[in-house]
Amino acid sequence: MERLVLHEYAASGNCYKVRLTASLLGLPLERREYDILKGETRTPEFLAEVNANGRIPVLQVGDRFIPESNAACFYLADGSPLIPFTRFDRADILRWMFWEQYNHEPNVATLRFWIAFVGEERLNEARRGQLGPKRSAGEAALKLMDEHLASRSFFVAERLTLADIALYAYTHVAEDAGFDLSAYPAVSRWLARVADQPRYTPMSA
Amino acid sequence: MERLVLHEYAASGNCYKVRLTASLLGLPLERREYDILKGETRTPEFLAEVNANGRIPVLQVGDRFIPESNAACFYLADGSPLIPFTRFDRADILRWMFWEQYNHEPNVATLRFWIAFVGEERLNEARRGQLGPKRSAGEAALKLMDEHLASRSFFVAERLTLADIALYAYTHVAEDAGFDLSAYPAVSRWLARVADQPRYTPMSA
Repeated sequence: MERLVLHEYAASGNCYKVRLTASLLGLPLERREYDILKGETRTPEFLAEVNANGRIPVLQVGDRFIPESNAACFYLADGSPLIPFTRFDRADILRWMFWEQYNHEPNVATLRFWIAFVGEERLNEARRGQLGPKRSAGEAALKLMDEHLASRSFFVAERLTLADIALYAYTHVAEDAGFDLSAYPAVSRWLARVADQPRYTPMSA
Repeated sequence: MERLVLHEYAASGNCYKVRLTASLLGLPLERREYDILKGETRTPEFLAEVNANGRIPVLQVGDRFIPESNAACFYLADGSPLIPFTRFDRADILRWMFWEQYNHEPNVATLRFWIAFVGEERLNEARRGQLGPKRSAGEAALKLMDEHLASRSFFVAERLTLADIALYAYTHVAEDAGFDLSAYPAVSRWLARVADQPRYTPMSA
């Protein structure tokens, strides 16, 4: 495989997804850090060369770039058991990955960023007005996960796939955003199951 | 292939994506309509049997269900040329599909729904406060697409893929949400190119 470089902000769960996928697959990954709080992903150089959308993570493959965390994970895992080989299950992991980006990340991850990184006292009025709706939507997402996992070991096909990696990243740090994970026992058991995988790497590594 | 049923609200661009994919591939698709304005996707039956997340579209394959529009499209197109056969391009179409759900749909589609379906005068204060930010973010998304398409015929690999279908659905009706498509000439040419594909079907069909 070509040289792999992760353009990232290490504390971001979206970036961690890519590192965790690479680690579980034993793939070497160079890392390049940007401070998003200082706008380092909005510079003219970054926008022109790495990602016109001004966001991390971006996976660099040789001299080409893959923005969007879940697409980067898919690239790394393509052909591996982290992506099921049956058609329905392959679509089913994507179903959870799209759900993660639409229903989970904008609530759980955004609240975590606002509360644990920006600081609640520094939020402008528009963001402050979204705290309640995002709290409710994040709880609904965790509840839906808990109900799905009540009768399952993993999200799809009873084994670890990219669906678990995508959902693990922000769920396992949801308490940073003020969510109480003890209210979601099946989620808590699943979190332990993911962390127990061979070649697992923690977010702080 | 097993029997395919689309659980949908026909005016939704997310549902149209699935119909357009099926049409381009010549796949027969039964349709079952729900009125989202009357809450028909939040009934106990729908939540228990079709989608615990209470949203459409959901693609039914035999007696199993695939929520999330882009996952449903992936299921239909799996093994067809709408999903590139090279690893990088496969990840690249997913990059655009995840970007669509994160940066485009929550702005362009949500504004269209609020303005053309709910009615601006009926929006509550929280939604009203989001009109400006969503307008700016929608314009940024259309600008990013226009810059990408300025030197390309399609989003990935110079031919029609799921990336185009995912982005076409809400872009081609963005004027319903008050966006001026004449400001994005490369997008406008690409829209005509997609509509010119063999077996294309319009949203109203």
